[in-house]
Amino acid sequence: MTISILQQEIDEQPAAVERFLADQSATADRLVNDLKRHNIQYVLIAARGTSDNAARYAQYVFGAYNHLQVALATPSLYTLYGTPPDLRGALVVGISQSGQSPDIVSVLAAGRAQGRPTLAITNAPASPLAQAADWILPLGCGEEKAVAATKTYTTSLAALALLSTALSGDAARRSELARVPDWMRQTLSSIEPRMARVERYRYAGRSAVIGRGFNYATAFEVALKIKELTRVVTESYSSADFLHGPISVLEAGFPLIVVAPSGQTLNDLTTFAAEAKRLGAELIVISDSDGVLSLAQLPLALPSSIPEWLSPLMAVLPGQLFAMHLAAAKGLNVDAPAGLKKVTETR
Amino acid sequence: MTISILQQEIDEQPAAVERFLADQSATADRLVNDLKRHNIQYVLIAARGTSDNAARYAQYVFGAYNHLQVALATPSLYTLYGTPPDLRGALVVGISQSGQSPDIVSVLAAGRAQGRPTLAITNAPASPLAQAADWILPLGCGEEKAVAATKTYTTSLAALALLSTALSGDAARRSELARVPDWMRQTLSSIEPRMARVERYRYAGRSAVIGRGFNYATAFEVALKIKELTRVVTESYSSADFLHGPISVLEAGFPLIVVAPSGQTLNDLTTFAAEAKRLGAELIVISDSDGVLSLAQLPLALPSSIPEWLSPLMAVLPGQLFAMHLAAAKGLNVDAPAGLKKVTETR
Repeated sequence: MTISILQQEIDEQPAAVERFLADQSATADRLVNDLKRHNIQYVLIAARGTSDNAARYAQYVFGAYNHLQVALATPSLYTLYGTPPDLRGALVVGISQSGQSPDIVSVLAAGRAQGRPTLAITNAPASPLAQAADWILPLGCGEEKAVAATKTYTTSLAALALLSTALSGDAARRSELARVPDWMRQTLSSIEPRMARVERYRYAGRSAVIGRGFNYATAFEVALKIKELTRVVTESYSSADFLHGPISVLEAGFPLIVVAPSGQTLNDLTTFAAEAKRLGAELIVISDSDGVLSLAQLPLALPSSIPEWLSPLMAVLPGQLFAMHLAAAKGLNVDAPAGLKKVTETR
Repeated sequence: MTISILQQEIDEQPAAVERFLADQSATADRLVNDLKRHNIQYVLIAARGTSDNAARYAQYVFGAYNHLQVALATPSLYTLYGTPPDLRGALVVGISQSGQSPDIVSVLAAGRAQGRPTLAITNAPASPLAQAADWILPLGCGEEKAVAATKTYTTSLAALALLSTALSGDAARRSELARVPDWMRQTLSSIEPRMARVERYRYAGRSAVIGRGFNYATAFEVALKIKELTRVVTESYSSADFLHGPISVLEAGFPLIVVAPSGQTLNDLTTFAAEAKRLGAELIVISDSDGVLSLAQLPLALPSSIPEWLSPLMAVLPGQLFAMHLAAAKGLNVDAPAGLKKVTETR
């Protein structure tokens, strides 16, 4: 049996993150030193698709550890409307695997035109996005050939985590970050043998993914992988937002993926999962906690002792594998899903 | 036949917006005068559910007309993690119909504790949210009895539009805003007779709503109404984001609601709609433009000559009616959908 390109790229992730951290830690420190010249009051991030999910992670890691509010850019203000906001106080960051999308580039260009510091996080260090930025954190993942992004997502998370540790000068968190590649390897090797059971969802008509806090990003990214690879309509929610309305879509057997690693959100998510189960949902749980895993029809266990702020780098892996195996069970092309292009240029 | 409470509240919207503008314009001007004491570099908005969709509108109206970047708060940073960001430079706004949700209140409380100006936009001027704020724009809608929010949504949009005109001291836009109640009446009276055709979607398994720019908010809000009222799994996207991935879910007959009023986004959305139709989607189009309406199986025409920045107040109305009539066609209770509560308190 040939291994798909997607499977290879999923398996490359620990090495990609390891290489990125080895190669770019010094750059991150120099960048942070340079930022001291600027009065940074908040971070503005421009991104789309998978990279936008990395930006959601930034909202929590910069908020919780650097006291920085993160705003997500609305690129059409810069392109369609031609009315870029006044960016005083902003560090302007663009995240894009290809660095090609004109609308993301336009946000960086506006930041630079206003004299704000600009940073590109991209796998293409010669791209238009990189050229528009003062600073580049090149992901260095090698070409990502599968249409569904995996290694560039987790390496983008690593870039944001690295930047956060550099901004706070926090050596203890930098050491924790260095352990991520091993934790990713442990996760992949424990989850991959469980994936035969994904066949159970072959005829599922829809699903939803729930996360909160640091793993709100994970919920969005897992939902996006499922949509891209399997065409199953899948929504992502904070458990808090799900209670504000969409819980009405729950019906018997509704497959609900709950991303619930240990940390500040675990109690709430365990309560949420129990309630969803009571309402008839079928649970697929990604966690290191036996309590919430025991509620699941398909428990997907993470290694224990992962700090919550880094858990998104591991918690997304079972979701990527779930989406890939579900697509395979449905007989779909996992490397090049119908109707999708790798690089989409939006204006 | 008895008229549902939801239908009554949908029909009350023009009068609610008219009353709000008459009662609160002077307050908005006083608030803006007071804000001159502060160095406002960006706007931070805390909201959930329907109110979060109003916040999406604020991103465009404040961005395009007031050069202000809007950040959407991640309330769990304030509650679960106890690490509120440094809010220097922020005007802190909470939007909540009930003013009850502790997590939204906590963002305002953090803003006030840090000496930042705070504003509550709420239908409950004695609520905890209102008490946590320096300034209140009371929506004055009267009690909203149906679980699905309608009149408090459009009046929240009116509050944000009013604030934008006050911030820019723009008399011409203030006059345009005053015409909104009449445009809303025209929209309701032209759309309501078309709603018998919604029966066509009685057995639709899923749908999606597409918008961009000012009406990105409308796409989210229409999708939320459909989910709340009909349980049909419905996603909302910017047309740009839809091209970055989820377009792969399109299949023959997929019901796609395209919100495309005249303005800067119309060309892109018309191209998008034509492409979606070519891929087999069935289109329901909300627009005043004959070109894009002609692509639709169910065209829902808006009055002509509405300025784009105000179009979300009208464009959401056909979506609310669509969701209500679809729920009725499915035999569901439109006033109190199963599994939903009017006030959800999240922490």
